Amino acid sequence: MKIDILTLFPKMFDGPLSESILWRAKDKGFVEINIHDLRQWGLTERKTVDGKTYGGGVGMVLRVDILDKAISSLKTKNSRVILLDAGGKKYTQKKASQLSQEKHLIFVCGRYEGVDHRVHEHLVDEIISIGDYVLTGGEIPAMVITDSIVRLIPGVLKKEEATQIESHSKPGYIEYPQYTRPEVYKKWPVPKVLLSGNHKEIQNWRNSK
Amino acid sequence: MKIDILTLFPKMFDGPLSESILWRAKDKGFVEINIHDLRQWGLTERKTVDGKTYGGGVGMVLRVDILDKAISSLKTKNSRVILLDAGGKKYTQKKASQLSQEKHLIFVCGRYEGVDHRVHEHLVDEIISIGDYVLTGGEIPAMVITDSIVRLIPGVLKKEEATQIESHSKPGYIEYPQYTRPEVYKKWPVPKVLLSGNHKEIQNWRNSK
Repeated sequence: MKIDILTLFPKMFDGPLSESILWRAKDKGFVEINIHDLRQWGLTERKTVDGKTYGGGVGMVLRVDILDKAISSLKTKNSRVILLDAGGKKYTQKKASQLSQEKHLIFVCGRYEGVDHRVHEHLVDEIISIGDYVLTGGEIPAMVITDSIVRLIPGVLKKEEATQIESHSKPGYIEYPQYTRPEVYKKWPVPKVLLSGNHKEIQNWRNSK
Repeated sequence: MKIDILTLFPKMFDGPLSESILWRAKDKGFVEINIHDLRQWGLTERKTVDGKTYGGGVGMVLRVDILDKAISSLKTKNSRVILLDAGGKKYTQKKASQLSQEKHLIFVCGRYEGVDHRVHEHLVDEIISIGDYVLTGGEIPAMVITDSIVRLIPGVLKKEEATQIESHSKPGYIEYPQYTRPEVYKKWPVPKVLLSGNHKEIQNWRNSK
């Protein structure tokens, strides 16, 4: 899979993509992630990418012509273009699973001030919001989506992790309480059943949670 | 406001905290954000912080004693301790607004494999999930929450931005379509009403969206 991310703040991605499973997935060639600074498509020497909103209002709106140039330079027939915006459709694990099967994703990181509405209407395949809260821009949402889909690409998680994931209703999340050493900490013991070695009882206990 | 973040992957935060509004808020002294590597509280020379799950299962579980030491070293009477975990209560803008009024937040970044359940029961004030999808850990959710609350601290946004925010039902998000130059791009024009200069008609059009 290839992921291209269009942003005004490319440096924000420095840390999040360099650790843990995302790093492993890139290192092993399961995914190629490219961060593109939108200003490279900016106008004139000032590299302008936004402008005042028609009809009045504060904040700067990202220009449709700039985003068209940026998207066109990356898009192929296998691409799916997604705008991250608070007004989009709510992101779910089901959508993560769908997107993990795409060949090429282009994420357009909106800014909270706004993106020219012609981008919504003509240039993107879908608009996604990661939840009912407002963020400064689409950068952190792009990280959320990247993390959630890359770990679903076959081979990225270790075999035993992947097997465990398949067994849960909320894939990848273990719903029952987990404990590790020490057996007793302060006055808080691990539930006795988990120390019993009786696999059937342990399973019953976990199912009951 | 002070925010302490406990994580196994401190480098993930390098980029996201160094740009845009978060940077401005830190630079102007509205918020102090500290990232703490959990391994500094690890056991023995190997700096162990996790262990196998009692009762069987793959993945390593974060230890209760380590998290207790870490949280205790940061906690004061004004602290609110929050675990980021897929099993937590769904995050909303209302919660962002509540948290933005706290003096001190401690975020504990869970890992998808799990956190000893005694942490859930005894060491944190609440458990938050940012949405119905599974991520590798609580690091990106901690960024989401930090971004969403810091921008609500009075003074962080410019005065005119803050005024605009208050006028919307989904604070900070402008629900009506926005446009900027060019007036016509390809065959896509800006709606005529926005170019009319008639403020009442513009307001009516925006309200109708």
